[in-house]
Parts: sequence; C-alpha cells; structure tokens
Amino acid sequence: MKFKARLLDIQAGGRRIAILDDETASLLGAHSSDRVKITYKNHQIIAIVNIASNFPHNYIGVYEEISKTLGIRDEEQVEVQPAQAPESLRYVQKKIRGERLRESEIKAIVKDVVERHLSDIELASFVTALYVRGLSMSEIEVLSRAMVESGKTLNLKKSPILDKHSIGGMPGDKTTILLVPIIAAAGFIIPKTSSRAITSPAGTADRVETLCPVNLTIEEIKEVVNKTNGCMAWGGALELAPADDLFIQIEYPLEIDPLLLPSIMSKKKAIGATHIVIDIPTGRGVKIKTIGEAHTLAYDFMDLGKRLGINAQCAVTFGEQPLGYAIGPALEAKEALNAIMGNGPADLKEKTTNIAGILLEMVGIENGKKKAEDILQSGKAERKLREIIEAQGGEPKIMPDDIKIGDKKAEVTAEEGGRVLWINNESIAQIAREAGAPKEKGSGVILKVKLGDKLGKGEVLFEIYAERNTKLEAATELAKKIPPIGTGEKLEEKMLIDRIPTKIIHKKAFTLER
Amino acid sequence: MKFKARLLDIQAGGRRIAILDDETASLLGAHSSDRVKITYKNHQIIAIVNIASNFPHNYIGVYEEISKTLGIRDEEQVEVQPAQAPESLRYVQKKIRGERLRESEIKAIVKDVVERHLSDIELASFVTALYVRGLSMSEIEVLSRAMVESGKTLNLKKSPILDKHSIGGMPGDKTTILLVPIIAAAGFIIPKTSSRAITSPAGTADRVETLCPVNLTIEEIKEVVNKTNGCMAWGGALELAPADDLFIQIEYPLEIDPLLLPSIMSKKKAIGATHIVIDIPTGRGVKIKTIGEAHTLAYDFMDLGKRLGINAQCAVTFGEQPLGYAIGPALEAKEALNAIMGNGPADLKEKTTNIAGILLEMVGIENGKKKAEDILQSGKAERKLREIIEAQGGEPKIMPDDIKIGDKKAEVTAEEGGRVLWINNESIAQIAREAGAPKEKGSGVILKVKLGDKLGKGEVLFEIYAERNTKLEAATELAKKIPPIGTGEKLEEKMLIDRIPTKIIHKKAFTLER
Repeated sequence: MKFKARLLDIQAGGRRIAILDDETASLLGAHSSDRVKITYKNHQIIAIVNIASNFPHNYIGVYEEISKTLGIRDEEQVEVQPAQAPESLRYVQKKIRGERLRESEIKAIVKDVVERHLSDIELASFVTALYVRGLSMSEIEVLSRAMVESGKTLNLKKSPILDKHSIGGMPGDKTTILLVPIIAAAGFIIPKTSSRAITSPAGTADRVETLCPVNLTIEEIKEVVNKTNGCMAWGGALELAPADDLFIQIEYPLEIDPLLLPSIMSKKKAIGATHIVIDIPTGRGVKIKTIGEAHTLAYDFMDLGKRLGINAQCAVTFGEQPLGYAIGPALEAKEALNAIMGNGPADLKEKTTNIAGILLEMVGIENGKKKAEDILQSGKAERKLREIIEAQGGEPKIMPDDIKIGDKKAEVTAEEGGRVLWINNESIAQIAREAGAPKEKGSGVILKVKLGDKLGKGEVLFEIYAERNTKLEAATELAKKIPPIGTGEKLEEKMLIDRIPTKIIHKKAFTLER
Repeated sequence: MKFKARLLDIQAGGRRIAILDDETASLLGAHSSDRVKITYKNHQIIAIVNIASNFPHNYIGVYEEISKTLGIRDEEQVEVQPAQAPESLRYVQKKIRGERLRESEIKAIVKDVVERHLSDIELASFVTALYVRGLSMSEIEVLSRAMVESGKTLNLKKSPILDKHSIGGMPGDKTTILLVPIIAAAGFIIPKTSSRAITSPAGTADRVETLCPVNLTIEEIKEVVNKTNGCMAWGGALELAPADDLFIQIEYPLEIDPLLLPSIMSKKKAIGATHIVIDIPTGRGVKIKTIGEAHTLAYDFMDLGKRLGINAQCAVTFGEQPLGYAIGPALEAKEALNAIMGNGPADLKEKTTNIAGILLEMVGIENGKKKAEDILQSGKAERKLREIIEAQGGEPKIMPDDIKIGDKKAEVTAEEGGRVLWINNESIAQIAREAGAPKEKGSGVILKVKLGDKLGKGEVLFEIYAERNTKLEAATELAKKIPPIGTGEKLEEKMLIDRIPTKIIHKKAFTLER
C-alpha cells in the first residue's frame, strides 16, 4: 500500500520505528510491534510499528533513522507492506523456553541486535531469558565471538598484548592509571580501553579525562600504543562490540547482567588481548559478596579465556571499602598522580603492583610484584604515564594541584569516637554522585579515615567536594540519611544494623560498569 | 534543572516518554530508561528518558501524553529532576529471580502498568519472567483481582449472570452468535463481550459487527441487556481490565501468554459473571494439543473461578478442523444467521447446544442440551437474536443474503480424489487473512469439504472470497504454498508429512484471542 511519509525530526535512539494510526495500521493488518517493509526508490527498510491514535490517516511517521537511510522527504509517497519478524525471534523464543541455542542461532540474534531488527520488547525478553535460563559455556563462547565479529577490532599486529579489567563496584578504583604505565614501562603492550561511569561516581575514562583526552579513534589508539606501548582510551565509541552496547541499554533498567562474561571478554578479544588479569573485588559492598562466588566467576573467566585464545587469570581483591581515599573523577586522578609520584595510599599501590605482578608473571617475568614495585618506585611508571598523557594530547607536565577540584566543600564528622567499624561503598558512591560526580568532574568524596582507623568524636570522617552549592547541600543531606561510615569502640557494641520498618532509600545500587 | 519543552506533535502509544540529548541527559545524570520528574506550574509527571543524539541541548522533548497532562506549550520552561524507578520494579525483579510475589506487590505492579510507570523493557521482562517462572494459583487470583480493580465493571445488579469464553485458535468459531440468543431466550442474563481478531481471521466482535454495531458503552450494554437479557458487544474499549490490554501488547510480539488465565477470568469477573463455560478447543491445529493438556488447563480455570466467586466449568471440544464451513467475519455471520434460522452446519449446532446445555444445567435447568436444541429449533433463538440486533442498533430483519460478501472469488480444487484426510487450521486462517480478513469483512474462505468427506479429483476443496483482486491473488498463491487440506484414499498412503530442508512459511501462528 502507498502512504505518505511524515518525517519526525528526531531520532529514536537507533531504533527503526514507524508510526501509524489505528486505521492505517489495520488497513495493513499490522498491530503494534509488527514489522513493515518500507520501500522508496529501490531502497528498503524493515521498521517496527508503533500505533499513535492521533496520527493522520494514510501517513507513515518515520524517525530520522529511517528517513535518512531511505532518503525520503516529508510528504513523499512510500510503499508499505507487512513484513515478518526476523528469524532470530524464533531463537529468542527458544531461549525463553529454556533450550540451548546453536551457533548459527546466536549469530543470527547478534546480527539482528546490531542491525536493530529486534525491538526493545524482544531484547528485554531475551536478556531476561538469558538471566533465568542461563547460558552454557559453549553458548557464552559463541556469543562472545559473535559480538566480536559484529564490531570493529584493533589489529596491532603485535604479541603479547596485555590487559586488565575490573568487574567493578568498588568506589575509588583508580588502579588502571598506575597499572598501564607500569606494564608499558616494563616493555609490554597494553592498549587499555575503559568505560565511563554508568552507575558509579567515576569510570576509568572519566578519571583519565581529567589528565588528557580519552576520546581516541582506533587509529589514534594505534599511534599512541606504537609510541608508548600503552594507552588509556574511552572504549565507548569504538564500536568494539556494538551488540554489547545495546544489551547494556536493556540490562541497565532491569538491573540484571547475564551477559557479564561475554560482554567483558568480547571487548578484550576485540582489542587483541593475549594475556589478561580480571580483578574481582569481593566483599559485602560490591557485586561479588563471597570468596566462593569469586572463585566460581574466576573459573568461568579462565575457561572462556581459553576458548577465545586469551590467557585469563583472576585476582580476587578486598572490596569492603573504597580503594584509596578519593572518590570522584578529578579527586581520583589527583590521588593516582600523587601515588605514581610516590605519595599515594598503600592499598592502591599494593593492589596495583599485585595485579601488574600477575600480568608480568604471565608473560614470563619472575617476581612480577617486585618488578612492578621497582618500576613504580623508580619513577619509570611516572615517566611512562606522562608519555602516554602527551601522546593522547594532554599536558605531560601536569601536577596534582593542576587538576581542578570542586571549590565547594563540606566536612562530615564522627558522632562517636573509636574505630572505623564499617564503610558502606554504596553510600559513599551515592553521596559522591549526589555531589555531581561523574558529570561534574571536580566533585566527589575524600575519605579521611579507612577501616580500623582510630578517631575521636567530632573528627572528620570525610569531605564532600562539589562544583555547585546546591549539589553540595544535597550530598550533605544524603550523607545524613545514609551514613556511610560507622564508628565505635567495638563491633560488639553495634549489634543493631537496621530497624524495619524504616525509610529505605533506594538509589541505583546495581553495578554495571564495563 | 530548567529546560525548555519541545512538544512532539504525536503520541507515544500511551507511554510517558521524554527525549533528551546525551549532553542534557548527562547534566541530569540520567541514562536511557531512567526516570525524570517533570514539573510545570504545580503539575508533575514521571517520564522515562529516551536519548536522541541530535536533539537540541537543554530541551526536553515530550510526546502528547505528557504535554497534555501537564498543559505545557512549546518552548515553555519546565523543571526536570532525576526520579527513581517505581517500587514495583523491585517486585518485577523479584519475579525474575523466581520468587513468589505478595498481594501488595502484585497490586503495585498492576497499578504501575495501568498508570504507565513501567517501560516496555520492564514489562517485557516481567511477562517473560512470568512465563519462565510461572505463577502460583494464589498469585493468579491476586493478579486477576488487581486487574479487575484497575478497570471498570459492569454492575447489572442481577444474578445469575452467565457467560462463555473460548480460548480460541479454531477458525470459524461462531458459536457465540447462536449461544447468546439461546441463553437469553431461556430467560437468563448473558452480557457477552468479545474481542476483535488479533492473530486470527475473525474475532466474535468482527463477526457480529456485520449484523449490528458492537461498539457499545457500558451504559449501552446495560440497556441492551435489560431489554433482551443478552448482548454481543466489543469488549476492547470498555476498559474492563486495562492492565491486561497492556500486557497483551507485550505478549503479542513475544508470542507467549503467561497471563491467559487471569486475562480471561478478570474480564469475566469485571462483567459480574457468576456462571461460565470455558470452551477449550483441543487438537493438533489449536493452542491445546492434547486432552491431557486440556484437562490441566480446565482444572486451573475451575480453581481460579472458585477463588473469584465464579462457577466455572469447561468444555473440551474437537479442534482439528474449522467449525462449520465459513471463515471470515461476514461469511461466518452469514453461516451463523443461516444456522439460527434452521439451515446451518451440524458441528456448529452440536457444539453450541452442548455448551449452552452445560450453562443451563449449571443454573438448575435439567436436560440442558435438549432445552438448548428446543430453543434453537423452535425459532426462539432466532427471534432473540433479532431482538439483540435491534437493541444494539442493527436491522432486525436482516437476512443472510443481506450480509455483504466479497465479490472476488477463487476456487481451489483437489489434485487427488478420495477422502479429506486432514485440514490444517493454521493454513486456512492464513489464507483467509491473506484474502483480507478480518479488516476487509467480506473476505475469507468457504470450505466445501470437511474431515472424512469423499470427493473426486478436481472437485472444489474450498473457495476464497476477497474484496480486492490483489488480495484474492495473494491468497490463492498462498494456498498453493501451504495447502490446507489433504485428500487421498487412506492415511496409510500419505506417510510423508514434510521434507526438510524445505521452505518454511512462518506467518504468525500464535493464538492470542481474548
């Protein structure tokens, strides 16, 4: 049938959506969520029907994704025909029924995800089915490979290529800023790509961006790595595994991540990693709560690595408090810069040299941790960091005080003296976000104490930094509602954890950082 | 934060969606699918964020659902703040994890579905989780009640109130058009509401609409029922269980219907039914394939009925071929009118009087089937049908030949003589849809033979009727690809059912008719 095109002057977030009114849709025999094929001058596109009851009859409304692809102008006639749902929907339904998917079926799904042939409803159902039904390791392997094949790859033509990844959830984890220079200074290639914060106060890309640009193209990454052995780039726009970026958009509102393993490993495969350490922070305040869970996940990572031709090892790390003292992009970058210059917190250095040590030992270096410590202490890591900053277009002589921190500041003090008995990662993260992180880069939290530290009543527990007074006030208010640090003489005197009913403040507590 | 409103001049299908560009969204700390609260002159609304990369900075785009509710005009300033996901999302996640939901949790979900606080992604995940995890009978009961409470009800202030429902899947099932007049003529109240076709060639509302208007309001239904004891109205716009209408929009593309029981029974409860017969067509070509499955479902219906205060009984009926000979809205109405006037097919009369008989026996009438047959044969049913047609605004003297049938016609003949060995319901339905049903009411299929009938080579198997030549041709073509009727001397001579690989024509084969 022929309808007139009504161009909607906006995008639909990549979705291929066509608007029809009820009457026009029923002329086609199309219901909401059905497919139609739109043809214009030998160009064709499959779109998913949305019904809008006030839309003009015999018009088809198209968002920019469609109008640009077809080259249609407003009011032009297009041919519209009913079209079938893609074959991959059958495989989504198979997984809903709990069946195992074949290689060709998984590939068809990934292809249709990337080409936007599956609707949000279908994707949400698929992600939920994956979560409930699970995936065999063979399915995970095929899915990882399909996600790599659907995207771009970084072909450095070198080997070995080292990498690290944290499954996240630990506020203040600025390990990468120290680790990449250590590995690169040791003479190994480490083309690190990182994400921006999704649910946390800072992602590695957010942190590094206060030191130098991170928005590199694949070609620029190659140049930086060829010059310095390493890089710290934002991975988000590289299209390394575009299917995964779309899955994440579905996982985020649902707060489930059945695709954790293929998501992480496909991106590592896409940059050509041959040796990788996965950091699994473990503890009550992070995604993985127990050592047992951490071990299960670690063996899955190693198994998947083997299947993909990547030597993967895992580090289970202490995750019951933030790493270092700083939380927030600029505050963390400053702490990392201080640390690489010799003045950083012990836990940050300890964790970094441990992970760097494992990586170095994987490629044949003996006493890896000692080697990493030497590189850090000798100043070689600092020089390498400055090389990388320069190669990425930053100021190589940057000093910690050059990093701009929010000029609004509040202190939160202890109502009771004694020891720090617990620190709630989630509360710290929420307060830092309320203060403006990660968007307002100078905002966040500086802890003044860590677990086990002694302090007196009225002493400062932590400082809140913000770029705007309203944000500072909001964060200070929130800190009163969800006190993130508990102090007292002994845990034995703090037996009441919560009183129910009580006001539960639920902000997004789901970790989705890749 | 304050942004300018950009009014999008269309609806989002009832969804409350706000468009932001990446920059503006990240100022708010909002990602795609996050909630924002939009405030304008003391009016507030929660919307779900969609990101459009080409949208102007510091603008918030709103569809009509939002602009009308708030009364905003284009370019006016609104206050936008991040908002949390509704509490009900926690309960959706509980069901994803496989936990049983409490009454208050189910009610919260239904309320948020109706108020459009849950996104398509969240709804799709919920429906998938229900399908995979299942619902206990207590959960089904609470869900049914919550769906009734969320909508309008028909308060006839009479008792008993009778009803029937078919779970569908059988082409040509025009039982209702005979059954309602029989029950009403017997002196019982039967306020029947029916759906239009979703995946079939005709819903009861589509059939009845060729006899009289079906688009009645609740008040009009009351008037018709008070006058005639019965009615045959379209239920779709009555808002009897609006949550269900929204669930159906999600179930449709996924082709799963975990809400079958609460969906049907909530609507029966909403019209005040006290006695109901559920027809469960059973056979290879319908939703329920085996007698065993039919029994399981029947006991669930009866159990749920008891919990809702409805006496529900079930009829397991033969579903291996269409009912009667006609498939398509007008063709079926004509056949039904002929039947009630004494000239209809045996299976239609047999099925109708059986189901009517069960209903009559449930309210204390002895020999129900005999009573139903008497009403039908005596002409009382016909007179009652004409009363109902008149009360609903139709022409009471309508004769079968007054019903307009498509004037394009094709015949499909037998390539082999013998007996009719099988009839494929699904193929028949697809051919009728291809011919234009249900939208083009005069189109469809007339079978010339039924299972077991003898015929010679070249004799007519069925006729296709259409209102347009293009549709007639398309349906004729389809009939060649998916022959719906198999003939031959003996089944023993037809051992090959399918050859694989072969071209599989997958049109929507999912039954979603409520």
